[in-house]
Amino acid sequence: MFQPPRGTRDFLPEEMLKRNWVLDRIREVYEIYGFEPLGTPAFESWEMLKIKSGEDIVNQIYYFKDKSERELGLRFEWTASLARVVATHRELPMPFKRYAMGPVWRYERPSESRYREFWQADADIVGVADPIADAESIAVAVDCLRRLGFEGFMVRLNDRRILNAFVEYVGMPKERALDIFRAIDKLDKTGRESIIEELSSITPDQEASERLLDLIVLKGEPGSVIEKTLDTLKGIPVGIEGCNALRGIVEHSKPFGFHDYIVVDLSLARGLDYYTGPVFEIYAKGYEDYGSISGGGRYDEIIELFGGEPTPATGISFGIDRLVLLLERKSAFEEMYLGVGVYVAPVSDSVRPKAIEISQELRGAGIPTVLDLMERKLSRQMEYANSRGFKKVIIVGESELEEGCVAVRDMETGEQSRVKLEELVEALK
Amino acid sequence: MFQPPRGTRDFLPEEMLKRNWVLDRIREVYEIYGFEPLGTPAFESWEMLKIKSGEDIVNQIYYFKDKSERELGLRFEWTASLARVVATHRELPMPFKRYAMGPVWRYERPSESRYREFWQADADIVGVADPIADAESIAVAVDCLRRLGFEGFMVRLNDRRILNAFVEYVGMPKERALDIFRAIDKLDKTGRESIIEELSSITPDQEASERLLDLIVLKGEPGSVIEKTLDTLKGIPVGIEGCNALRGIVEHSKPFGFHDYIVVDLSLARGLDYYTGPVFEIYAKGYEDYGSISGGGRYDEIIELFGGEPTPATGISFGIDRLVLLLERKSAFEEMYLGVGVYVAPVSDSVRPKAIEISQELRGAGIPTVLDLMERKLSRQMEYANSRGFKKVIIVGESELEEGCVAVRDMETGEQSRVKLEELVEALK
Repeated sequence: MFQPPRGTRDFLPEEMLKRNWVLDRIREVYEIYGFEPLGTPAFESWEMLKIKSGEDIVNQIYYFKDKSERELGLRFEWTASLARVVATHRELPMPFKRYAMGPVWRYERPSESRYREFWQADADIVGVADPIADAESIAVAVDCLRRLGFEGFMVRLNDRRILNAFVEYVGMPKERALDIFRAIDKLDKTGRESIIEELSSITPDQEASERLLDLIVLKGEPGSVIEKTLDTLKGIPVGIEGCNALRGIVEHSKPFGFHDYIVVDLSLARGLDYYTGPVFEIYAKGYEDYGSISGGGRYDEIIELFGGEPTPATGISFGIDRLVLLLERKSAFEEMYLGVGVYVAPVSDSVRPKAIEISQELRGAGIPTVLDLMERKLSRQMEYANSRGFKKVIIVGESELEEGCVAVRDMETGEQSRVKLEELVEALK
Repeated sequence: MFQPPRGTRDFLPEEMLKRNWVLDRIREVYEIYGFEPLGTPAFESWEMLKIKSGEDIVNQIYYFKDKSERELGLRFEWTASLARVVATHRELPMPFKRYAMGPVWRYERPSESRYREFWQADADIVGVADPIADAESIAVAVDCLRRLGFEGFMVRLNDRRILNAFVEYVGMPKERALDIFRAIDKLDKTGRESIIEELSSITPDQEASERLLDLIVLKGEPGSVIEKTLDTLKGIPVGIEGCNALRGIVEHSKPFGFHDYIVVDLSLARGLDYYTGPVFEIYAKGYEDYGSISGGGRYDEIIELFGGEPTPATGISFGIDRLVLLLERKSAFEEMYLGVGVYVAPVSDSVRPKAIEISQELRGAGIPTVLDLMERKLSRQMEYANSRGFKKVIIVGESELEEGCVAVRDMETGEQSRVKLEELVEALK
């Protein structure tokens, strides 16, 4: 028997209704913030996909050739396609705020929480260099989480330029900055000793590694962390730029409504190569050890790399799979009714045309309705309706019809009442 | 500069908003009919994809190997994945009514209306052998089209078993039935002479071909067409079965509300190999020469072919690309407002925090709002808001703020009025 390919999954309706509910809420909030949808193909030219990706990711791309020997690859995230569109469509009015939601593919070792096909929902702001755009990106992510029922948050915040300045400050090799960032990104997971060891392969100067780690462990209330950092980096322009960007985000965070959640954390690097400024990760209060739910940052160089005009850009991304898992753990779906509400049960074949008509009337009024199609006995229909969790069953019987009525059974209370046909839509709404 | 791969497209927001509108309406109607979403991977095992596909389609599948040399292919339609899920998940309660919407991929020669990545939206009913399920499939398709603003329809209807019986009746080779169906499917496009010629490669008996064509040109009012056909095929059981199925659909079509649109057309074959019973195509009145907008049919053998229990199934499918094109031709989007409604324009940097607060308040009330992020002069902001088609601009100025007000400009009438902050949400709703 055939199974979905390794690392991919089927989502049966029960699961899919939850995923759709999450995607719909995120899309709703994205659109309320004025982000607009952009559609790009599931595969892109291999040459293009390689441009912005580190070696790690290139090895994870599903690569193939089409029948004309064109080299292609499945998208492994959304940003490259966005950069391509902005680079080629110079007529786009700026700022360009776009969202994209859908599957991406990576050939990774599958695990309980890692799949080869998984969904990402991104929102990005292109064309704005000011930290107000980073702040709006964080704000939309926080509001998505509020819409999904979360109540407290932690916004971890750093700036890549501060990390670059630290590397310079402690005298580590600048050209290895990305490798250094990748190493320190694991600080939370693996601990200090292990990072020092990893850094020793980058620089033999262990004292520099120690000093770097002493600097990046600083975290907490934005004002004091930024002040201390500025004090350390006052001679390094790029570090000052980073601190000023963080200051801008913190300042805007008050009217945007997420000021109380900010923790400036100088160990936050986010491994992806392309970040150039602020980076951020959002956690749900009470679920911090679950990891970040949303993350993003500023990437001011990619669009130029793709052949476009130099164009600043920033944005955030949700991993839908993790989000659904977390909401399940939070029992968020238990109180939600995601099924179809009404089941129409004809008691015999002779009333079937009337049962169809009634179904069509309810559907026309916007009431989700399932009609029996199996000519089952009423008792079997009731069993089915019960097992599938319908809220109401409309029993269409001859004697009731003669009086212009149907029986409506409330499946939660078990109560059954007669309702006139002309009052049925109103009674069910 | 990088372009989307040949045969694929980018959809800029203006286009994407239309596509999303269409997809949302179809999903809405599918859900009202009680269809539930099923998610399956974008690629499936190559071995599985080959099972149900004719040679033509196998050659069009995007084939690739993963890094463990597994042979995979991108889905080229939705039915194979549905059949796989039903075959493997025997616990699914029947009937199983599922919908699926998304891109599918075929390596075809691209043309103005044919792409290598295109979207299909399917709804299928699994587990019901009775023609009531075919009737409900047609009903949901017609209601989708109504919801999209179409007003008159033609439902072309036939049954594969009638065609099989005709082949037997005229004495053509049964084992070539699929090739014969593929040929006659082109009748509308290429005309009789060309079909006779194509059939001559299947059977040298030209008289049989002529007789077959005489039989299949019959079309029109269901009652008389079915009666005549029954009269011809009274000795061939499979033909009688086909006629009875059509009768069933026609009978159910009255309460389902599409009886007036039915044309039984014995030349309708629908090329796909897997149909076993009724086949149908739906056209919009006034746009018939545009081709069918929705099509489908019964396929009672596929699930068994995929290793499952013998399970009847029927369903319909929309090609989203053609649908959007048709709606555009119908100027359906012209009266629709799909953009973001409100633009918030701070007149100076000092009022920016207040402008952010106002934006957040509107967004919190569910009003889609774009906030200026560019620190542009007011005149430039108004130009931008005008060119992007915003309906209202909220001008946030110091003197107005001192009085607890903002100016609201209606971009359609050009009228501008002062509104108190606490009344702003109400005024914009």
